[in-house]
Amino acid sequence: MQDTDRDLLPEGLGDRLPQQAAASQRVRRAVLDVMAGHGYERVETPTIEFEKSMASRMAGVQVRRMFRLVDPVSLRTLALRSDITMQVGRVAATTLAAAARPLRLCYAGQVVTIKGDGLDPTRERLQIGVELIGSDSEAAAAEIVEVAIESLRAAGATGISVDFTLPDLVDALSAEALPLAASQVEDVRQMLDAKDAGGLVDAGGEAYLPLLYAVGPFDTAIERLAEFDRLGVLAGRIAGLRAIAARVDGKARLTLDPSERHGFEYQSWFGFTVYAEGVSCSLGRGGTYRILGGQEGEPAGGFSLYPDPLIEVLAAEGGERKVLFLPLGHDKQIAERQRAIGWTTLAALSESDDPVALGCSHRLENGEAIPL
Amino acid sequence: MQDTDRDLLPEGLGDRLPQQAAASQRVRRAVLDVMAGHGYERVETPTIEFEKSMASRMAGVQVRRMFRLVDPVSLRTLALRSDITMQVGRVAATTLAAAARPLRLCYAGQVVTIKGDGLDPTRERLQIGVELIGSDSEAAAAEIVEVAIESLRAAGATGISVDFTLPDLVDALSAEALPLAASQVEDVRQMLDAKDAGGLVDAGGEAYLPLLYAVGPFDTAIERLAEFDRLGVLAGRIAGLRAIAARVDGKARLTLDPSERHGFEYQSWFGFTVYAEGVSCSLGRGGTYRILGGQEGEPAGGFSLYPDPLIEVLAAEGGERKVLFLPLGHDKQIAERQRAIGWTTLAALSESDDPVALGCSHRLENGEAIPL
Repeated sequence: MQDTDRDLLPEGLGDRLPQQAAASQRVRRAVLDVMAGHGYERVETPTIEFEKSMASRMAGVQVRRMFRLVDPVSLRTLALRSDITMQVGRVAATTLAAAARPLRLCYAGQVVTIKGDGLDPTRERLQIGVELIGSDSEAAAAEIVEVAIESLRAAGATGISVDFTLPDLVDALSAEALPLAASQVEDVRQMLDAKDAGGLVDAGGEAYLPLLYAVGPFDTAIERLAEFDRLGVLAGRIAGLRAIAARVDGKARLTLDPSERHGFEYQSWFGFTVYAEGVSCSLGRGGTYRILGGQEGEPAGGFSLYPDPLIEVLAAEGGERKVLFLPLGHDKQIAERQRAIGWTTLAALSESDDPVALGCSHRLENGEAIPL
Repeated sequence: MQDTDRDLLPEGLGDRLPQQAAASQRVRRAVLDVMAGHGYERVETPTIEFEKSMASRMAGVQVRRMFRLVDPVSLRTLALRSDITMQVGRVAATTLAAAARPLRLCYAGQVVTIKGDGLDPTRERLQIGVELIGSDSEAAAAEIVEVAIESLRAAGATGISVDFTLPDLVDALSAEALPLAASQVEDVRQMLDAKDAGGLVDAGGEAYLPLLYAVGPFDTAIERLAEFDRLGVLAGRIAGLRAIAARVDGKARLTLDPSERHGFEYQSWFGFTVYAEGVSCSLGRGGTYRILGGQEGEPAGGFSLYPDPLIEVLAAEGGERKVLFLPLGHDKQIAERQRAIGWTTLAALSESDDPVALGCSHRLENGEAIPL
């Protein structure tokens, strides 16, 4: 009986077959090892929790994007996690409220959304990240950018580039230097984000036009931003960006897009996006922010990587699998020694097991690994 | 504002704090490395998929124990996975239907149930396991028991014991040697499972009474089982158990409980449960079975470990954390070299960072790690 309907997976959900899953495991371990090396301690959070808890911890969380269900035990609404950041924020603000600051935490896990993002139907992704709680200083921001770059490099990414942004730029400028009516602020933000010069003028943001040209390779763009900032309202932020850039100089290509805001709705003064060669979409983003509730807006920084597109690229590159076939009646102790020195072994279960069909590269003969 | 309600987690769901999460990561990696060493290739399956697909792949799956929700994209019912085994069965029977047999796959992931199990309220657990698809022979069964023991030992379990069972024992006996009416079979099974001698007689299973005494340390219990099996109906199974026992002799304490059936509802001729010293509940179980659908009842074997109780024990044992504090203005290259040789480093972000409060054991001074 062929029941193909039963074999289907829902749109946007899929399996990772051995080659992809091996790449996924390598990436996850490499990234987590870099984070651990920099003192970020792992926490693990549940797959589902109360919707209210997920939604209230951080501004900008889209509850509508989460799968929700009723818990028969509590009769309350649960949500499938769509972002681990807010769960880690909860841990930091509750169970670990008394832990010394700065508190460094990291995490890795699957997140699920009810719908894909734009044209991408994917509804489940791997998220790996760090949160640095208790500081949003320039030193904190520089550390997280460094750890993000090093994590991706360890995972196998090449040609890494980092795009910096100033998420609260319009708030900072409109407060004094370039005043805007309250009703104009959101429109100006959107037009800057869309790089729409005409729309920006129409929205009353003519004075903000030069920002559209302070974009591109970091060294020239930051100069243009400094020129634009005649009153020095952004001086602290510009100095911060320069300090971060100096710290990561030579490790990644740096660009600046000071008014980029999409995806940084809940960030404070600093945000960044990371890219790698051969991967068309971004691999993650981060920045500084404030945790809602708990310790009353505690400053924090962090980043989230979504390495699935990198995993696809690495899996496609493949790599030889070295597997040692153990014939029937092989010496168990020799097999154990071979595994101890790093061999993958595959023991015959019957005479009909075919080492080549099973993907073995070598065969154990008289205690030696003989290429097949 | 203190909003404690928002901070609650649903019953049976929890966070793993750094010490627990570190133990969890160590266990997961150690177990997966053992599985990989024996040629089991990792696959990753989605957190949610169609309920129908989850439920139809294997007998004995309790759909009522799964969280279900409606997919707004397909308008069909999805279920949160409560068992990864059946997902791996789906992969083996569909995408990997043409892969050479025996096919060795492994997996690790979180599984969620709508209610806890008996007195244990836990609703989310880590599941790690292997499936060996294409054979349910004595050699296949012996390999999976060996890999299960080795996995747990690598994870840090000590005093491992394995309890063997024959899940289809009553089917085999009632077919010829000790006939039962169709209406009696289920009652006899249940009374044997409950070790209820009186109930067994009442259910018409008096002839099965000796099975209640073929229980205990493997060597004596298997002799009693062989004596009971005068007609030799079980001769093949008994020889199989002896062969498996011989393979794992010395690696674990072995016991036999031939009529144990709870938790083995979908197993065929062989089943086993694993325990470790200092952990009161079982750490996993496995056996031989048949995949439903796909390649028409393809024979298979496998096991699932649920290592959460072991992780709790290992986390409580703790262990020193060696962390090197990097003062402000430290040499970045020296810090990098320290990480490369295995140090965890923690960089000061401000003068107020307190290395002792932050859990550091050492401090970098003049390029040397000085104990604090």
